[in-house]
Parts: sequence; structure tokens; C-alpha cells
Amino acid sequence: MNKSILDVLGRVHRSPPPVWLMRQAGRYLPEYRAIREKAGGFLDLVFTPELAAEVTLQPVRRFGFDAAILFSDILVVPHALGQTVTFSVGEGPLLEPIEDRVGFERLAGELDHGMLAPIYQTIRLVKQALDPSVTLLGFCGGPWTVATYMIAGRGTADQAPARLFGYRDRVGMDTLIDVLVDASASYLVRQLQAGADAVQIFDTWAGVLAPEEFGRWCIEPTRRIAEHVRRQVPGAKIIGFPRGAGTMIARYVDGAAVDAVSLDWMIDRRFAQDRVQARLPVQGNLDPLALVVGGTALDSAVDVVLEAFAAGPFIFNLGHGIMPETPIPHVEQMLRRVRGC
Amino acid sequence: MNKSILDVLGRVHRSPPPVWLMRQAGRYLPEYRAIREKAGGFLDLVFTPELAAEVTLQPVRRFGFDAAILFSDILVVPHALGQTVTFSVGEGPLLEPIEDRVGFERLAGELDHGMLAPIYQTIRLVKQALDPSVTLLGFCGGPWTVATYMIAGRGTADQAPARLFGYRDRVGMDTLIDVLVDASASYLVRQLQAGADAVQIFDTWAGVLAPEEFGRWCIEPTRRIAEHVRRQVPGAKIIGFPRGAGTMIARYVDGAAVDAVSLDWMIDRRFAQDRVQARLPVQGNLDPLALVVGGTALDSAVDVVLEAFAAGPFIFNLGHGIMPETPIPHVEQMLRRVRGC
Repeated sequence: MNKSILDVLGRVHRSPPPVWLMRQAGRYLPEYRAIREKAGGFLDLVFTPELAAEVTLQPVRRFGFDAAILFSDILVVPHALGQTVTFSVGEGPLLEPIEDRVGFERLAGELDHGMLAPIYQTIRLVKQALDPSVTLLGFCGGPWTVATYMIAGRGTADQAPARLFGYRDRVGMDTLIDVLVDASASYLVRQLQAGADAVQIFDTWAGVLAPEEFGRWCIEPTRRIAEHVRRQVPGAKIIGFPRGAGTMIARYVDGAAVDAVSLDWMIDRRFAQDRVQARLPVQGNLDPLALVVGGTALDSAVDVVLEAFAAGPFIFNLGHGIMPETPIPHVEQMLRRVRGC
Repeated sequence: MNKSILDVLGRVHRSPPPVWLMRQAGRYLPEYRAIREKAGGFLDLVFTPELAAEVTLQPVRRFGFDAAILFSDILVVPHALGQTVTFSVGEGPLLEPIEDRVGFERLAGELDHGMLAPIYQTIRLVKQALDPSVTLLGFCGGPWTVATYMIAGRGTADQAPARLFGYRDRVGMDTLIDVLVDASASYLVRQLQAGADAVQIFDTWAGVLAPEEFGRWCIEPTRRIAEHVRRQVPGAKIIGFPRGAGTMIARYVDGAAVDAVSLDWMIDRRFAQDRVQARLPVQGNLDPLALVVGGTALDSAVDVVLEAFAAGPFIFNLGHGIMPETPIPHVEQMLRRVRGC
């Protein structure tokens, strides 16, 4: 049986559309919380293949999603470049901030694949356990988004520290982005070699960039990653997610060399039909808060997304990660609505 | 001598373009900080006409900006509706959050113009002191943005509490927006009657809304405010600022009935030329962080904005408020660049 998501990434229309949810392996699931407690820290869970494989499989087992996505975090890349990352409860990730070019010249420059070996092992374990109709997705962060965390040390409103860094030292930022392009590409290649069927590049903070910088630090790096990956893994399928791109998404479609584009929930859907789905398969774009609320609000939010995109190559998903407070019955309600059963 | 900004709002091209900066009366100015210390709390400053007029005039005096903008805050509207607002140092505004429809049914429903009388007096004082070539701007927050603070009690990432409220109780949110439309319109009318030459509606959090809600809670309310204001003050000029609107800005241009649109720094400038400036005068869109950084980064950021928009009706401004850490010499550098002197 064909993997429905790979079909769509190859521009084949599937009806009903395949479905998965960003951050589907996570805190809204009691079986995830049980494993999380057992594992210790967040990174302990990420780097323990048996447990990471188990939480990757949990949502597929429970909901019958059409994709499993590797349980990991975009910040394992700076971690494997030598910038220590810690996850504290309730605070999110913390890194030692990089304040200037000297700061990242101390980094390794090349990814420590030994450190990432447990992640590749997780992919192998998931692949063995997964029904062949289900697509296994790997992922990395977009270089710009990863850089924002490396520079600020954490998430901030509008990621001002990285934007300031970029205006103050354009060449320095270019150098950091170059390091991340190479690291991300070789990381994705290894994920594909370990068994991932396709990969997604999460550029969560693309939307704070001015147009010149959006081209330079989001579109161009994504294109270079995509080309590098396809040179080593011919035919590899890549989904891009430039969250908050707004009007710049049209240039992303033209320039980023991805096979499909994941849409946030804010985009004008007619614009997305004309300027995105007319050229590439799309994924998304349900507001994660509609899934929190449920009821008729959820039904109509699902209907609007399906009406806009389900007539073409489309993967149903959220416009951002699922919220930890999402009730499980709402996910079930959404699946029935999408699958018409 | 004509007010250059009113000329532009009437679709007249002025070269060089007039300039002012959002939040130009503020903490980056030592003369502001001196008055702020003297005044006590932030709202004490807003509600003391002599001091509020003085800080409104300070940046015009120092830099020769083409507009003075009333020194106040968008949250005086909920304050005058009976929801107490406090400003704590370093934390921003705090309100008692409104959790459900019962919460805002306790509000007054009509604006207490007596409470706002000092603001109208500030406008009269500024008007007397201002050179007749300088435009005096009043303002209010967009109903959606004000509602997000009323519901969450403070600013939050993505303003999730208000978005959840809107999905849970659509009619309740409509009712709150209706109250804010009426209050904002009558507040702007009084500002214009007191001497404001034009007004701006700041919808700072427009960008987090999904398209249906963007139409319902940003575009429609703005249109209703604009029509109400023009019924009472014929010919009143209104600038709209739907920050983060992205692809939805084209619908805003068509539907919000504003005279000009202020652009954030993230918009694709070619899109803005074709879909915004082709129909209405525009204002903006320098990244406030370029002004923090200065130097050649600032020069080229200014040049890009001028190249994109200065050939048509345009008011030079930032894409969001000026940052408190902005060095004054950078503002001077920017002004020389814009005015070509």
C-alpha cells in the first residue's frame, strides 16, 4: 500500500487528505507524560532510542495518523555543534547565548554525528515498527530559527537579539547560517539514510525577518539544504514550513526548492491557493487553538481548511504545534471530520 | 504652510516624504525620562495635560518631525470603560482579566469621557503650541488588540487567551468588539474635535488572527469606526495599522475604509506597492532594530524603504514603535538620509 503522504509530496491528489499533527508526540497524551516522567530530562528522552521510538509511535497507534514524526527537537543541531542545550521544566530550552562572532567561532563547525547516533537509531527502530502505509518524517529547524535560539539563548518576543546581530554583523550572521546549512543538510541526509521517508524544515521564526533578510537567511539557506540533501539522497522529499512568512511566502515557493509548503493559520487562503498550492502541494493550516476549543468551532475551522485545500494535493495538519492542553476527544473529532467517517 | 502629512493622507505626493516615528515620545529621550520621573506613574503622566503635552512636543522640538502624536496609551479605552489598568515598571500594562461574557457585561458599555477629559485637554494644549505645518495625530487601539489585553490582562505570545475566547464564545467576542467599536469611535471623534488633525488606529495584534476572524474582528470593526468618525467629523483622515497582517493586508485595504495604511517591516515591498500603495497612501516600514543599530545597516535599510515607496504618497516611519535603547544620533542620521540633507 502506498504511503499517502509520499503520494501527496509527489503531487498526487489523495481524498480524503492524509493527516498528521505537528508536535503530535507530546504532552497532550497521557502515555507520553508517563514515559516522559520515566525518562528524566527532555534530552534524555530524545537520546534514548527505545523511549524516543515509543513516543514517536504513540500518536500513530492511538489515532492512526498517516505520518510518524521523529520525536526530537530542532536544538539538537547546536547541541551537536558544541553549544550545550538544556531544557528546564516550564521554561523551554536554554543555551549559553552567543554574543558575537568569536562566540560561534568556538563552535565545532561540523556536526558531531556520534552525539546524534541515538537519533538515527530511533529512526531505525520506528521504521521497523511502522506500518508500511505510514510515512516516517524526519526534521530539522531552519538555520535562521536555530540561529535565533543560539544567539538569544532562548525564545524571545520577535527574536530581537538575532535580528540585531544580523544588522550589526551581516557577514558574521552569514557565517553562522552557512555552518547551520551544512550541519542541517548532513543531519537530514543521515535521517533519510536511517529510514526517514521525507523530512520537514521548521523555520518557526521566519516571520520576524524583513524581506531582504527573509531572502538571505530563510529562502536561500533552505534552497541550499534542499539541494545538498537531494545530491546525496536523490528524490528526497522536503516539506518547508516558513511560519509567519505572510506575503513573503510567494518568494519562498519560487526560491526555496522544497517539495511542499506547510501553512500557518494566518495566511489568506485564497492567496495560498493562487500562490502556493497552484505550484506545490500544501500542508496545514488549522489553528491549533480551534483544536483546543473543539465543538462547532472546531468543525467549522476544519471545514474551512478542507474547502480551501482538499481539492488539490494536500496534507491536513495544524498551522503550528498541537497545544499541551488539547483534549484527546477533539483530536478524534477532527479526524472523523477530515476522513468523513 | 500646508501640513505635509495631511497632504499625503489626501493622496498628494510629497518629496522628501514627511517623517514621524511611532512611539516617538518615549524612553529613548532623556527629556522624556526626566518628566516621567517627575510625574509618578505612567497613567499620571497621561492624565496630566501640561506634562503629557510637553512630552508630546519634545520629539517634534528636538527632531523637527512632521507630526506630533498624542502621548497616551491604547488601554485608556478599557480604563474609561471601567476596567482598571495599571502600568508596573518593566512589566507593561496589567488589567484584571475578563474571563467570560459576565466579566465584560459588568463594564460600563459607554466610555467615561469625563475620565478622558485630560487627554482632550492635552490635545488642545499641543495644538496651541504646535507649528501649523506640523500634523497633530490622535490615536486609539484597534478593537481586537484592545480586546486581547482586556481578556488576557496583559500582553502574551500570540494572544492565545483572546483567540480562545473568540472560538469559545463568538457572540460574546462580537459583543465586546461592538462595545470597543463604539467607544473607540467616540474617543477618536472627541480627539478630532479637540484639535487632532488626523488619527491612527493601532491594531498591533491583528497578525495572530485566522482569516475569518481577521475579517470579522479587524477589518469590519475598523471600517465601522472609520464610518462613524466620518459621519461626525466629515473628511476626517484615518490611518490604519494592522501589524502583522501579512497576506490579509490586501483585504484590509479593500475593506477597512481607512485613508492610509501603515506597514510593518516584514511585508514584501513589491506586494505592498502593488496591493497597498497602488490604492492608498502608505506609511512605515523601517525595522525599528535597524534604527537601534545605526551605521551602514541603517543607511541601507532607509534606502530600501525610500526606493520602494517614496515615489508615491508616503509617510516615512518605523514598522513598529521606536525601541527605548535607540541612540539619538541614529534618529538624526535617519532624518538626514530621508530628507537628503
